[in-house]
Amino acid sequence: MLGQFFSPKSVAVVGAAREPGKVGYGVLQNIIDSGFKGRIYPINPKADAVLGLQCYSSIKAVRGKVDLAVLAIPRAAVLSTVAECGRKGVQGIIVLTAGFREVGPEGAALEKEVLSVARQYGIRLLGPNSLGLIDTHTPVNASFAAGMPVRGEISFMSQSGALCTAILDWALKEDLGFAKFISLGNKADVDEINLLDAWAEDPHTRVIISYLEGIGEGRKFMQAARAVTKKKPVVMVKSGVTAAGSRAVSSHTGSLAGSESAYNAAFKQSGVIRARSVEDLFNLSVAFSFQPLPRDSRLAIVTNAGGPGIIATDEAERQGLRLATFARSTIDKLRASLTSTANVYNPIDVIGDARSDRYRVAVDAALADPGVDALVVILTPQAMTEIEATANLVVELSRQYGKTVLASFMGGVRVEPGVRILREGSVPNYEFPEEAVASLGAMYEQRRWIEKPVEQPMSFPVRKEQARRLLVSAAADKRQTLGDVEARGVLTAYGFKVPTAMLARSAEQAIGFAKQIGYPVVLKVVSPEILHKSDVGGVVVGLQNDEEVGDAYETILARVRRFMPKAVVWGVEVQEMVTSGKETIIGLVKDPQFGHMLMFGLGGIYVEVLKDVSFRITPLTLSDAREMISQIRSYPLLAGVRGEKPVDIDAIVDALLRLSQLAEDFPQISELDINPLRVRERGQGAVAVDCRLAFAPDGLVEQVGASGRSPLQEQVAAS
Amino acid sequence: MLGQFFSPKSVAVVGAAREPGKVGYGVLQNIIDSGFKGRIYPINPKADAVLGLQCYSSIKAVRGKVDLAVLAIPRAAVLSTVAECGRKGVQGIIVLTAGFREVGPEGAALEKEVLSVARQYGIRLLGPNSLGLIDTHTPVNASFAAGMPVRGEISFMSQSGALCTAILDWALKEDLGFAKFISLGNKADVDEINLLDAWAEDPHTRVIISYLEGIGEGRKFMQAARAVTKKKPVVMVKSGVTAAGSRAVSSHTGSLAGSESAYNAAFKQSGVIRARSVEDLFNLSVAFSFQPLPRDSRLAIVTNAGGPGIIATDEAERQGLRLATFARSTIDKLRASLTSTANVYNPIDVIGDARSDRYRVAVDAALADPGVDALVVILTPQAMTEIEATANLVVELSRQYGKTVLASFMGGVRVEPGVRILREGSVPNYEFPEEAVASLGAMYEQRRWIEKPVEQPMSFPVRKEQARRLLVSAAADKRQTLGDVEARGVLTAYGFKVPTAMLARSAEQAIGFAKQIGYPVVLKVVSPEILHKSDVGGVVVGLQNDEEVGDAYETILARVRRFMPKAVVWGVEVQEMVTSGKETIIGLVKDPQFGHMLMFGLGGIYVEVLKDVSFRITPLTLSDAREMISQIRSYPLLAGVRGEKPVDIDAIVDALLRLSQLAEDFPQISELDINPLRVRERGQGAVAVDCRLAFAPDGLVEQVGASGRSPLQEQVAAS
Repeated sequence: MLGQFFSPKSVAVVGAAREPGKVGYGVLQNIIDSGFKGRIYPINPKADAVLGLQCYSSIKAVRGKVDLAVLAIPRAAVLSTVAECGRKGVQGIIVLTAGFREVGPEGAALEKEVLSVARQYGIRLLGPNSLGLIDTHTPVNASFAAGMPVRGEISFMSQSGALCTAILDWALKEDLGFAKFISLGNKADVDEINLLDAWAEDPHTRVIISYLEGIGEGRKFMQAARAVTKKKPVVMVKSGVTAAGSRAVSSHTGSLAGSESAYNAAFKQSGVIRARSVEDLFNLSVAFSFQPLPRDSRLAIVTNAGGPGIIATDEAERQGLRLATFARSTIDKLRASLTSTANVYNPIDVIGDARSDRYRVAVDAALADPGVDALVVILTPQAMTEIEATANLVVELSRQYGKTVLASFMGGVRVEPGVRILREGSVPNYEFPEEAVASLGAMYEQRRWIEKPVEQPMSFPVRKEQARRLLVSAAADKRQTLGDVEARGVLTAYGFKVPTAMLARSAEQAIGFAKQIGYPVVLKVVSPEILHKSDVGGVVVGLQNDEEVGDAYETILARVRRFMPKAVVWGVEVQEMVTSGKETIIGLVKDPQFGHMLMFGLGGIYVEVLKDVSFRITPLTLSDAREMISQIRSYPLLAGVRGEKPVDIDAIVDALLRLSQLAEDFPQISELDINPLRVRERGQGAVAVDCRLAFAPDGLVEQVGASGRSPLQEQVAAS
Repeated sequence: MLGQFFSPKSVAVVGAAREPGKVGYGVLQNIIDSGFKGRIYPINPKADAVLGLQCYSSIKAVRGKVDLAVLAIPRAAVLSTVAECGRKGVQGIIVLTAGFREVGPEGAALEKEVLSVARQYGIRLLGPNSLGLIDTHTPVNASFAAGMPVRGEISFMSQSGALCTAILDWALKEDLGFAKFISLGNKADVDEINLLDAWAEDPHTRVIISYLEGIGEGRKFMQAARAVTKKKPVVMVKSGVTAAGSRAVSSHTGSLAGSESAYNAAFKQSGVIRARSVEDLFNLSVAFSFQPLPRDSRLAIVTNAGGPGIIATDEAERQGLRLATFARSTIDKLRASLTSTANVYNPIDVIGDARSDRYRVAVDAALADPGVDALVVILTPQAMTEIEATANLVVELSRQYGKTVLASFMGGVRVEPGVRILREGSVPNYEFPEEAVASLGAMYEQRRWIEKPVEQPMSFPVRKEQARRLLVSAAADKRQTLGDVEARGVLTAYGFKVPTAMLARSAEQAIGFAKQIGYPVVLKVVSPEILHKSDVGGVVVGLQNDEEVGDAYETILARVRRFMPKAVVWGVEVQEMVTSGKETIIGLVKDPQFGHMLMFGLGGIYVEVLKDVSFRITPLTLSDAREMISQIRSYPLLAGVRGEKPVDIDAIVDALLRLSQLAEDFPQISELDINPLRVRERGQGAVAVDCRLAFAPDGLVEQVGASGRSPLQEQVAAS
């Protein structure tokens, strides 16, 4: 895929320049220097030859086929050149030229036009405002970057061209190999999703790393990422602070669900490893491209110094790795061969005066132990230390055993020759032991992701049509929110338990319903015009007997008459008062990038003050639902502490999955809060006590019920 | 201070060897090579000369004065050699020899003997098991490390000798200067406290960095650190995982108060900056030694690439730094001089094709702006980038303005010459912009610490003698815990409000007391033998009237007779039932290193499940108390959320300070939990509802009250 970019047979450089320092010179020079084996066509109407190659006055003047055109021309000429490329049958264009969307609305309009012409001809377009791309295996360097990395198995995409140049320069210094190196520019056409798809199948790419500032189509990204992350690790830096309050919010979920939460959830659900920094990105890329993944989390450490061993142990704990417990035979072997003051338990301390022979014994014994999945070898340059010999044996044994081996040869000048041997032997070396252990932590995370079974979202039998009718009727009323009764109707249609409720039209009827339901009850005014019932005194809770119900009925009507004299009142609802069960909140919001996202948390202050919530993009799998419950800090309150019985966690899982299904069925829903969802003891289920739902009426067909009553009235009557 | 180590006039190397590779050769060679200007005396009975210097058969054979002796001899000879040094009048000894405490009890015993002999002669001793020390200003290199760093202003102490060698090697590669470099070894005598004291006054030391695995005397350490951190930054890596459950705990506070909490509190209270990793340690040391502290937190960023600018902005937010808002004139200046596509707001983006002239305009304008305290200059090596010229102007302008300037010239090969210019010009450069901003974050933290007023712990007028009597009487009863009544007595003596309570000896009396106190009340059995009253049914809460009190009295006595028929019962306490106010917990524990430590948190699940607590070492200052309240995550619940009124935070502050004073007055108290401390609305105070106190009777004089009654009975009668 995208073969026109990565393995073209012929490349034209439109705007090929004769003056060193110009972009059109640099890119041509790079293509030539990269050893590109196909045809190269410099295009420049004012020159006969550039850099020793025959020059053409235009794309159409080229006689042969042109697979890829690189545009290094003024902005004004881009549109017509793309059209010309189209007519010539070019399949891919890289627009190096800047001055498009990144400079404002006028540039954005031009970018759109350029894209539209490209699409018309079926041309794929990289950029504009791209630095170009490099493929070390083809090889081709169609960029104006200085230098080309050595061949390797890491592929890098970046939304920042400048970061490409910096990282390229850094790779040259560190001698780190890359397979593909691509500057995405403005992503008018070719984007991160296309590249994930392409690199999933690329045999030269073993690790994908990327720097992104934003993701265009969240859902497609997740789909593409899921397909590749099970095969090869994808590590990303996602930068960009969310402007606070950039989104209108009207619910708890909305106010907590920032774009960061969405990215974190999306990355987690699609197996993308999020690097905290550019440095991390590189530490991890080296680990993944050099070494096999550990089978499990049991780490052995070999060191010639106690301190760094402790530092590594501390980091292992932070990373959730376990220090391996050695087999009896391993300990005996170590004790027999190491000096008496050595520590033969994990971390193995071969002591400061160790030469390479002691390292060999320790590394060999650790790797041979069946209870060890990975090894970190630490070396400090002491008087007796044989740095090169040790590096050689680490490389040799890492190959022999095939287990994950990382090194931290600490220091600078003296350790340098050892570090080189390690690098050439594909053992990643880190200046500090924390980095080695942290990289191993990410490798173990990838191992767990790979072994996690692929799940399909769960699907329940629901009454979708019932929910749709309620939304349609509200849309017909020109509303974008559902009332209590309606929202409850939607939830029951999707299998939620809600409090029993009946609509009374007189005090007597209210008392009768209250008796049926059983005390205590709640009374609430029902009116399509009153959204905030409590504000007008339209809700009375905790009613214990007939008299209180009768009084409350009249009080509510009197208050409503006073505060909202013109409101149409359909009646007063008598509702079961649910007081048992633990309060939780389930919310649904719509993220601009990723669409529907579910939130879970414990009710009240846990959400509002402690912000102890978790997020997942819909649709949810069973394990998504389970994980989002167990990852909140206050989870022990659900699982049971201080002698309390555990709540019905399966009922929460069920509620999350049903809400996920509702979200998938109705993209129109913009926000939904079930607050509280009261969760009873295990086996006793959960009740959605209160629910708010907002939606955009897009695509909902307006219709009126056959009875002639408004659908809301029908629903009320049916409830 | 410690001049015998850092500026000796004469040094003897006992065990000076003629064979390269031996420690006794290496250290002598290092002293000679370091350019040491004093006298050097090799001691070796089997040689006439070593490395061209006349050799002596023993220390006493030296005719002149010996300030410092370095021992590179077998372990068996150390004790007698130290004695010989003592007789000769040597003032300082470095014991390079290993095999002491680190190898077991036998070595520990020998170490103790060696120390005792040294003390007898007034000799200060570094080590044993030390790598030695380096002072680049004297200069002297009395270590067996390979190489000596260039002169600089960073002083480093390490509990790991191996880490010294690694860091030295790293410093040589990075060309980083050090003032002093010391391997602490086993810290038999000279320790981190001595060095903090010495380096506080050292004119060559501008920054102190250290790697420690443990701190011996926590209180003295804090005192020493406080004295130095106000003058120069102290950055430490403290490693070492706490063995879980290594301490017997019997209270909430105890179970939460790990050694990590104590170290974090101690560092915070004494201004020590805790580095998260060895890498951090160095990043910060470079920043502190090269650049002045920022006056405030307003950061400007200049970059030639958007992406890295965003990365830096993200990190600034994490670090609590503010992006500076430029003055109108600054923006005008930038707009007039930069290219039209440049971003003239913060971060200033000079755009990828910027040469050094644009960087000059931007850096100059940013530094000239009075609203800017610090600047981070980011550079990516693009085609037009003038790396060296830009580095030069950054150095020049950083000197001209004297504001904090850090750089991130990103890349490897191409940026290297620029990085060198920056380093020589004392502008720290970081491979990644996050590191530059994080280092600035630490510099700002140091600035705030320096400007924080020095406070003395507060002292309240209390009835210390009353508290002492209660402890003494319990000790006389061979108890190590106080009963309810006693603990309350201690608290009231220190000015706490406690629930009103009276001891009844009949049901009638109980009813009378209950009327006096006001309903509802609680009844509790009072017996010196019943510690867990609830377990025997000795507590009844929520009593609303005379009848209930009468019944409860009889019920309690009946239960106690059944479950503990032999217990002496002094009566039943009638206690005010405090139900108003928010539940908080204040606890006191004793850390093995740092002594008494206070804990604060909200009651119940906030402490038990969410572990949302804060710690401070006693004695507390006013701001310590305030900060430990406001730093908990659930603080908004105290400050008032969801329309609730704020609680009386001053009352919590008061309680913490009084408890701190109690802890200082009675080192015998091992654990104390006030759970709950019920805190009412602002101005309404707090009540210590329940209290448990455990103590060790050390040093409490046993005494019996003058009345002949036991002190507890006296107290009960008086309450």
